[in-house]
Amino acid sequence: MEYNQSKTGAPPGTLVYRGKETAEKVKITLVEYNEGTYVEKDFYDFEECKKAMTPDRIKWINVNGIHQVELIETIGKHFNIHSLTLEDIVNTNQRSKSEDYDTYLVAIMKMIYYENGIHSEQLSVILMDGMVISFQEIYGGDAFDMIRNRLRLGKGRVRRMGADYLAYALLDAVVDFYFNVLEKIGDKIELMEDEVVAAPSKKTLTQIHHLKREMIFLRKAVWPMRELISNLERSETELIKPSTDIYLRDLHDHAVRVIDTVETFRDLLSGMMDIYLSSVSNRMNETMKVLTIITTLFVPVTFIVGVYGMNFDFMPEIHSTWGYPITWAVIIATMASLLLYFRKKRWI
Amino acid sequence: MEYNQSKTGAPPGTLVYRGKETAEKVKITLVEYNEGTYVEKDFYDFEECKKAMTPDRIKWINVNGIHQVELIETIGKHFNIHSLTLEDIVNTNQRSKSEDYDTYLVAIMKMIYYENGIHSEQLSVILMDGMVISFQEIYGGDAFDMIRNRLRLGKGRVRRMGADYLAYALLDAVVDFYFNVLEKIGDKIELMEDEVVAAPSKKTLTQIHHLKREMIFLRKAVWPMRELISNLERSETELIKPSTDIYLRDLHDHAVRVIDTVETFRDLLSGMMDIYLSSVSNRMNETMKVLTIITTLFVPVTFIVGVYGMNFDFMPEIHSTWGYPITWAVIIATMASLLLYFRKKRWI
Amino acid sequence: MEYNQSKTGAPPGTLVYRGKETAEKVKITLVEYNEGTYVEKDFYDFEECKKAMTPDRIKWINVNGIHQVELIETIGKHFNIHSLTLEDIVNTNQRSKSEDYDTYLVAIMKMIYYENGIHSEQLSVILMDGMVISFQEIYGGDAFDMIRNRLRLGKGRVRRMGADYLAYALLDAVVDFYFNVLEKIGDKIELMEDEVVAAPSKKTLTQIHHLKREMIFLRKAVWPMRELISNLERSETELIKPSTDIYLRDLHDHAVRVIDTVETFRDLLSGMMDIYLSSVSNRMNETMKVLTIITTLFVPVTFIVGVYGMNFDFMPEIHSTWGYPITWAVIIATMASLLLYFRKKRWI
Amino acid sequence: MEYNQSKTGAPPGTLVYRGKETAEKVKITLVEYNEGTYVEKDFYDFEECKKAMTPDRIKWINVNGIHQVELIETIGKHFNIHSLTLEDIVNTNQRSKSEDYDTYLVAIMKMIYYENGIHSEQLSVILMDGMVISFQEIYGGDAFDMIRNRLRLGKGRVRRMGADYLAYALLDAVVDFYFNVLEKIGDKIELMEDEVVAAPSKKTLTQIHHLKREMIFLRKAVWPMRELISNLERSETELIKPSTDIYLRDLHDHAVRVIDTVETFRDLLSGMMDIYLSSVSNRMNETMKVLTIITTLFVPVTFIVGVYGMNFDFMPEIHSTWGYPITWAVIIATMASLLLYFRKKRWI
Amino acid sequence: MEYNQSKTGAPPGTLVYRGKETAEKVKITLVEYNEGTYVEKDFYDFEECKKAMTPDRIKWINVNGIHQVELIETIGKHFNIHSLTLEDIVNTNQRSKSEDYDTYLVAIMKMIYYENGIHSEQLSVILMDGMVISFQEIYGGDAFDMIRNRLRLGKGRVRRMGADYLAYALLDAVVDFYFNVLEKIGDKIELMEDEVVAAPSKKTLTQIHHLKREMIFLRKAVWPMRELISNLERSETELIKPSTDIYLRDLHDHAVRVIDTVETFRDLLSGMMDIYLSSVSNRMNETMKVLTIITTLFVPVTFIVGVYGMNFDFMPEIHSTWGYPITWAVIIATMASLLLYFRKKRWI
Repeated sequence: MEYNQSKTGAPPGTLVYRGKETAEKVKITLVEYNEGTYVEKDFYDFEECKKAMTPDRIKWINVNGIHQVELIETIGKHFNIHSLTLEDIVNTNQRSKSEDYDTYLVAIMKMIYYENGIHSEQLSVILMDGMVISFQEIYGGDAFDMIRNRLRLGKGRVRRMGADYLAYALLDAVVDFYFNVLEKIGDKIELMEDEVVAAPSKKTLTQIHHLKREMIFLRKAVWPMRELISNLERSETELIKPSTDIYLRDLHDHAVRVIDTVETFRDLLSGMMDIYLSSVSNRMNETMKVLTIITTLFVPVTFIVGVYGMNFDFMPEIHSTWGYPITWAVIIATMASLLLYFRKKRWI
Repeated sequence: MEYNQSKTGAPPGTLVYRGKETAEKVKITLVEYNEGTYVEKDFYDFEECKKAMTPDRIKWINVNGIHQVELIETIGKHFNIHSLTLEDIVNTNQRSKSEDYDTYLVAIMKMIYYENGIHSEQLSVILMDGMVISFQEIYGGDAFDMIRNRLRLGKGRVRRMGADYLAYALLDAVVDFYFNVLEKIGDKIELMEDEVVAAPSKKTLTQIHHLKREMIFLRKAVWPMRELISNLERSETELIKPSTDIYLRDLHDHAVRVIDTVETFRDLLSGMMDIYLSSVSNRMNETMKVLTIITTLFVPVTFIVGVYGMNFDFMPEIHSTWGYPITWAVIIATMASLLLYFRKKRWI
Repeated sequence: MEYNQSKTGAPPGTLVYRGKETAEKVKITLVEYNEGTYVEKDFYDFEECKKAMTPDRIKWINVNGIHQVELIETIGKHFNIHSLTLEDIVNTNQRSKSEDYDTYLVAIMKMIYYENGIHSEQLSVILMDGMVISFQEIYGGDAFDMIRNRLRLGKGRVRRMGADYLAYALLDAVVDFYFNVLEKIGDKIELMEDEVVAAPSKKTLTQIHHLKREMIFLRKAVWPMRELISNLERSETELIKPSTDIYLRDLHDHAVRVIDTVETFRDLLSGMMDIYLSSVSNRMNETMKVLTIITTLFVPVTFIVGVYGMNFDFMPEIHSTWGYPITWAVIIATMASLLLYFRKKRWI
Repeated sequence: MEYNQSKTGAPPGTLVYRGKETAEKVKITLVEYNEGTYVEKDFYDFEECKKAMTPDRIKWINVNGIHQVELIETIGKHFNIHSLTLEDIVNTNQRSKSEDYDTYLVAIMKMIYYENGIHSEQLSVILMDGMVISFQEIYGGDAFDMIRNRLRLGKGRVRRMGADYLAYALLDAVVDFYFNVLEKIGDKIELMEDEVVAAPSKKTLTQIHHLKREMIFLRKAVWPMRELISNLERSETELIKPSTDIYLRDLHDHAVRVIDTVETFRDLLSGMMDIYLSSVSNRMNETMKVLTIITTLFVPVTFIVGVYGMNFDFMPEIHSTWGYPITWAVIIATMASLLLYFRKKRWI
Repeated sequence: MEYNQSKTGAPPGTLVYRGKETAEKVKITLVEYNEGTYVEKDFYDFEECKKAMTPDRIKWINVNGIHQVELIETIGKHFNIHSLTLEDIVNTNQRSKSEDYDTYLVAIMKMIYYENGIHSEQLSVILMDGMVISFQEIYGGDAFDMIRNRLRLGKGRVRRMGADYLAYALLDAVVDFYFNVLEKIGDKIELMEDEVVAAPSKKTLTQIHHLKREMIFLRKAVWPMRELISNLERSETELIKPSTDIYLRDLHDHAVRVIDTVETFRDLLSGMMDIYLSSVSNRMNETMKVLTIITTLFVPVTFIVGVYGMNFDFMPEIHSTWGYPITWAVIIATMASLLLYFRKKRWI
């Protein structure tokens, strides 16, 4: 659940970390590059990081871990980041959003990945003039490893273009993670679909319900992501160059596609639920038919044989030689006509 | 229910108190502060309060109790508050809203808290030049205690910034109360979810229904709250300084998060209702199967034994030595083949 | 139903009365007032009414009855009212709406009241310079009696302010009637809610259905009312003074509150329907269990006693002294183990 | 269904008739009028029609039949009508729409009428300077007969006002037809509503389904009609004089009322479906109760009498004089206590 | 499913083909025409194609196959097409969209066709000054064959008008394919509708479910198509001449009609599902009635005959001459009164 009582009553703008507790040290990775150079260094102390910075290069500071609130505060003070932004960065119960603070843009979003269910992690990306600062939680490994690789190898546009393109590349990586999760859920849905038609069981129901819950949470994560991106698109900041706009537009299309897929999955799951319920009804109907056929076949004839089990002194049929065979004939005729009736009703 | 007949026919703008009746005296708390000073006094009479005010300090007058209509009228007259505003303040059947009356802004909202169900209380906050007046119902204790503490201790921005920031802090406290309630409901939903899968009973149904009703009322309270805040954001008043705008934007995000969570809870409850209904269907199916299996196993063989209970004089099988064991053989064969049939149908 | 064939083919703008037929005479009430004076006279003829009018007073002409089409036409001609407006006034199959005809504003609305179900009556209010003309159907008594009382007693703002405030007061009275009806329906829903949980019957279903239908019709009446009011708010006419705008805004809030309540009621009724259906399912399940338990307990043991009712010559158990008691032991053991099975399944 | 394969691959703008095939001749009716004159002539050839036209009169050319594609083409060429317009006129699989082609306005709409189900027919109205051209399919008789009558008799505004008012009158006639159909469906719904509560049968279900389908198609016809009208309202053409605007606004209100009614009917039908389904559930429950009561009453006592039908040599009760009456007492006691149990459960 | 893991981690703008693998050679068709000339040539190499181009003619380059990524890259470089556009062209997991890149417009869309289910293929159309470049997947044959024919034969407007009209004609062909598919699905729905009322079976359910899934995917393809077209309509490019605007408006109407039909089909399918479920309920009810009637008729009389099968020494009725006929009389009377009861309940 995404609210936390401990905050109630705290003055707005107080930095309170709201993620899982951890004791690991926070790693700061400083990447500096331009078209010709690429330098990457790890620090566990911000002061050293500050000293290591060289002017005239595009800088990317990645903070891997947001539980050391004082560190975040130090970084924030150094780069003149508003305290509300810092509060949002460390508060992992955040809705994805982007905001324009004139001197910088901030995008706070949920990255999701799939490991026995959907997990989400908060990523914050701050775009300043010639610099990107990113903050990530410590748990899910390093989401931006691949981008660092691309920078290092000097492949693609990412080295030629500015900090705004780097920020876009980080967001693009996050959206790609959404597609990964959707693919996994899509596979699960396909499997389920075969099962629900072939052999629906109570387990199927639980699984559909489980997937539905995942879709509810996924949807809650995905919609704000689109708003975030279209917010950036519409923003009139000069931090984003016109040449990057076209990439944001593309990213927006991707986010819309994610949403489309989530909605399609929801529709598919609803359809499956319907199928499940009709299957249960159908099978109940089958059970009823078996019961009705058996009862209808045997209850009347049981009455007949009961009649001649009576002990009355005066029962003329009893003493007739033909009594027994005629009774059998009546029994067989009764059952046969009932069977014909069921056949007419298409029950058997 | 939130309408009240007694009003019908009263001229618009008449002050009619519409809350629970109470005889308690209304307490007026005057807080005056600037960066260096903090003064707090309680009054039970507005005339004395008036005399106690010092110029050049930010003032916060909190009226704890709105049932003494004449007091509200006196205060309103002194501060030039429109009679419609006063009417709204004392009418607790109000929809949350904010309005701009040029010389002041008013926000009337529902504060909710959880005590054996959701309760709501009406809070009104008037922001004037250098002054905030707040009105609260007398029941739920003092919602703004914490803010007074923060002011007294001189902590945070609240002392350095103006009356508009104070008004924002009051609204922020209200939204925090929403999160508290959501947390409690979230816990209940989680408990219910385990129950509905494990052992759904009629009680579960009543509880789901109960939660659903609470969500309906919560939703009705939450949506206008968001409108209220975005109304303040868009308002072109000079009472709110640009530096406070950013806090309102943050507050707006919080309200959206509250709404998101309410909608998610609604979806979860709908899903639970579906699960409940399918569980009932499933169990009915189970019952049917037991009935059908037992009936199908014993009704045919009961017919067979009925046959040889008949008293016909002429029944050759009766006198055969093998009659009895063969009958048993037939009975056992019948039952065995029925059991095989059920196994094939995966009923047992 | 709200359409009427008799109109088809008539040229647009033809005055055709479409309410219930009545022979009662139409009463015209002329009210003239300013801050010092109040005159009220009843007429059954418009010519006399015309003569009685005094200049320089605010005028309110209330026409109680709209079935005398020629009278409406005469009044319309005298005050230069467009024929489409007149057509709308006498056509009671109207959707609530307000229109701006430059020289006058017209609001045509449904007033609803509750008497063994929701009834609606059409009210039309025309606001001209210094004058209000209102038309009402003759059935529901006089909806505006209270406002006349307030004018007469000189209470409240209504005497001090202009014709636009009077028109607002009439609309406010109409919205108050909506709240009255909602209160009555709210009480019914609360009663029903207890019943549906305690002892749902077929009657409950019919009542829920009945309330649902009433909500459908109420909703259809309420939404256009809000449009009507916001239409007036946005209208750029000079007939409404800025000082009255604030009252319209308040009225708009009331209309939104009516809609909110209607929607909440709809949600509550849907929830109740769900509860009803699950109750029926639950009770069917109960019935099934009783049937299954009884059948399962007695059908197998009936088979057992059937076996020893057979008349085979050779049945060794029959002649044993222990045959009978052992049979009883088997019967009791069978039933006991079945009871244990049911207990394990939590059926008993 | 409203698509037609034969078009695929044809170049856009090709005139292809898509209605039912017919061999009837197309009748062209020329009506010319001004305040003093009224001339009406029928032609089967457009050349003669052209010769018969007199200047300085308002002209209305009504083409009754659109299957002679060449005729439509000739007319189109003579009046300079865009080929896309002509294509739309003859293609009866059209969505209602209005378009502004500078020199003329065109409205293409579905007229619906009720004859054992809803039927629709395409009407196209072209408004040019001082002239209206209308095209209708040949089947449903002549929809505009009444308007011609009004023109002929010189009644109403229609003779005094221009071609734009005539066009409005044609559209008004179409909307009146919608009300006719709604009235008929409303009657059917009312009948059905009584039936579904009193004696729901499988036929009721089929009828509800049938009405639902009709509402789906009606809705599809009605919504574009509203768009069409508001399109005309917003259009900045000079072909529509300001004095006619007010009539279009009225027409728009009518269209909204049609939509409101359609939506209300949909709600009513959904409610009816719910009622039907709960009735079926309720009746199944009733059936179950009868079954359970009978079975529960007789199965246990049948076991009892079965016990004393056994043929054991040693059964002391058999030989007691009280055996038989005591057995009866037990039977009656069993049944009586079961009856009491059912009464407690309120089943009987 | 429409996502693909292999992309994750690739830098944005990398050309990765995402369709089915194929080894077929890509055919490039160059069409050049003006009002007098028409030349059409096939190439398997772009260099040759380049040489063959003649200035001052409208050019249409159709690339049939998009799996040779290098070829697409070469074409893109030659015509100055942005790498993001190229990426979108080869990535078949695209959402339909149109974009304005100043020097060219690009529309990427899904063409659908029906062959044992709905299949979709990606088409991309680039409109430049005096030239159209189209890219299609290789599988579904050649979608644009008919347009080439029309160009060749010099029929219709297509030869007289510019490249923008050609691009429109291509889009129009795509929308026509949508109508084809809708027609086929419409036929299937009609067939199903008869079946679901006459003889619903489990197969019917599977088919409804199948159609519903197809509608979900169709809907996902159709909505972006409308956005694409209205995007083009609103675009302020000079590549589209005003004379073509009217055709785009028409195309937009077609797309809306497709959406309307898809939504109607969805409603019809939902209605069918309801009918199916009520049919199942109804038939279960029928089965229950048969069971109840038979059980209720025979279980009580079986008890009666059981009574006189008891072996008590002292049973006076047994020895009476009238015992047996009276028993029969009681049995017949019981059954007759039960039959009357069922008739009253309208069960038989």
